[in-house]
Amino acid sequence: MGSDTSPEILFDALPAIADNLPEKVSFTLFATKEILADRPQHPLFTFIPVEEVVAMDEDPLTAIRKKKNSSISIAMKYLKEGKISALISGGNTGALIASAKLTLPMLPGIKRAALLALLPTERKPIAVLDVGANISFKTEHLIQFALMGIAYQKSRGIANPKVGLLNIGPEAIKGTPILREVYQKLIELNKEESIFLGNIEGKAVFRGDLDVLVTDGFTGNIFLKTAEGIAAFISKELEQIEEGGEKLKEILTTLKRHLDYSEYPGAILCGVNGIVIKCHGDFSPQALNNSIRGTIRLLEHDFLEKIKIQLATLFF
Amino acid sequence: MGSDTSPEILFDALPAIADNLPEKVSFTLFATKEILADRPQHPLFTFIPVEEVVAMDEDPLTAIRKKKNSSISIAMKYLKEGKISALISGGNTGALIASAKLTLPMLPGIKRAALLALLPTERKPIAVLDVGANISFKTEHLIQFALMGIAYQKSRGIANPKVGLLNIGPEAIKGTPILREVYQKLIELNKEESIFLGNIEGKAVFRGDLDVLVTDGFTGNIFLKTAEGIAAFISKELEQIEEGGEKLKEILTTLKRHLDYSEYPGAILCGVNGIVIKCHGDFSPQALNNSIRGTIRLLEHDFLEKIKIQLATLFF
Repeated sequence: MGSDTSPEILFDALPAIADNLPEKVSFTLFATKEILADRPQHPLFTFIPVEEVVAMDEDPLTAIRKKKNSSISIAMKYLKEGKISALISGGNTGALIASAKLTLPMLPGIKRAALLALLPTERKPIAVLDVGANISFKTEHLIQFALMGIAYQKSRGIANPKVGLLNIGPEAIKGTPILREVYQKLIELNKEESIFLGNIEGKAVFRGDLDVLVTDGFTGNIFLKTAEGIAAFISKELEQIEEGGEKLKEILTTLKRHLDYSEYPGAILCGVNGIVIKCHGDFSPQALNNSIRGTIRLLEHDFLEKIKIQLATLFF
Repeated sequence: MGSDTSPEILFDALPAIADNLPEKVSFTLFATKEILADRPQHPLFTFIPVEEVVAMDEDPLTAIRKKKNSSISIAMKYLKEGKISALISGGNTGALIASAKLTLPMLPGIKRAALLALLPTERKPIAVLDVGANISFKTEHLIQFALMGIAYQKSRGIANPKVGLLNIGPEAIKGTPILREVYQKLIELNKEESIFLGNIEGKAVFRGDLDVLVTDGFTGNIFLKTAEGIAAFISKELEQIEEGGEKLKEILTTLKRHLDYSEYPGAILCGVNGIVIKCHGDFSPQALNNSIRGTIRLLEHDFLEKIKIQLATLFF
């Protein structure tokens, strides 16, 4: 509920998605009675009727405090109690984060949760965090984001993740005073092996030399949405191309999929003790499918346990 | 001098560029004696030997204060004295800005100079400022950037430029406290006609509904370089495409040029009383050519006078 895509569209798409998953996965669906009315039963679906919805334009904290019976609040309670293994939402981002922070314990050593998005580059996907959870931040928060990014990439099988700090130039003196401080702190990670490769500019990120890009929630959100925007812009221009053989069509389809951010499973809320996935507010059935498959991968790889072990190694 | 591209490459390219310009334009070239030695004379070139160069990695303010005989300092003095009509540089951005601010008067009503870059979108180019001159900023500076952006687009012939504020969501409450304040102040521009269209996210910018995008120098620089980075990434992927007919080749060439930021004339330093153009540090002869042609257009359209008139109208 509460996303820009109508719940009906997502409901209609879900049976086909569920039936085509490699394994049987059960779904618990939190929606208002009106939406649930006349929905056909499905052996893998449990419907939980809720009384309220947090809208996109509501103030997150106020909404979460007031609307105890909203879909997001009740779903988060289910997650905390272990009744569901992971929570996917396309609703109000701030409300999702506020609800997670109020309901779930933080991971040991982490003071702020961050949204992590995996982005395509020329070589390998890069984990970018924070892409929107924290507008205000301190040095220690960005260090913790770096550690969570490292832990996430290790859980994806990357043995020695390389970290960069998003900045306006490669030199240590570049950027705001807080970024200069973060730079000096991150250098300390390089005692035994080279982990922090320094400041990196937006244009160099897509070369794919890094595994983790550290940034604050404001800058990271601008970065992510700019990348999405120009990718969509170019995709549209490519749609003009109608000529060419089968091979060409194939390349263009691959390229467009590669650039289509709805192909990626959504952002992971890192730092809380639970798997919470934030999808785009305007997510398509295809994006929902990718999000579900991505979430299943996280569960199969025991992501949360792995990230806890990694954080323990890094912190202590 | 001082750019990442060697001065020899630029020197070698300049005669052909100068000979092919639509009108005769004379060039004053500021370079060290070593670089000028053995350079063939050209009827349109004047060589000014300098003793020092500001390097890319030097602290801007220190360098400008110490190196009074650097190419940038001397060229800026020429600009102030009217010996040259415009100054193009691919060197240290901070030093160029510091030198301009120390040498040239500010335009009436403007307290901070900003770098303005013109970017391609689906519909029409958008003027983005600031893309890197100010890391710290106050509300009033962003309002002045908006006014300069409007003035610039009016000087390009856009009758009613539309302005957006780069932010992480469309709602007035989004972003940092300072952005919320800027939003409220920009709304005041809409007394007689709709000028400020509100907050805009990075992904919506490229749809091309706006003429001016207002942002601070840090965020704007991240925005610009991210756009450049992903455009370069996609261009590389497109290079794989070898099949297809003439029509296809043509579309791809147009698209690649459209996405190639070296096709754009460089960023304009707005707010100082002089035409100062900042090119990429790694600018190619092609980019130099575009930069020169773009600068000539600014001169032909009497850009500086027009922007002064616009600012006077807007301020008083």
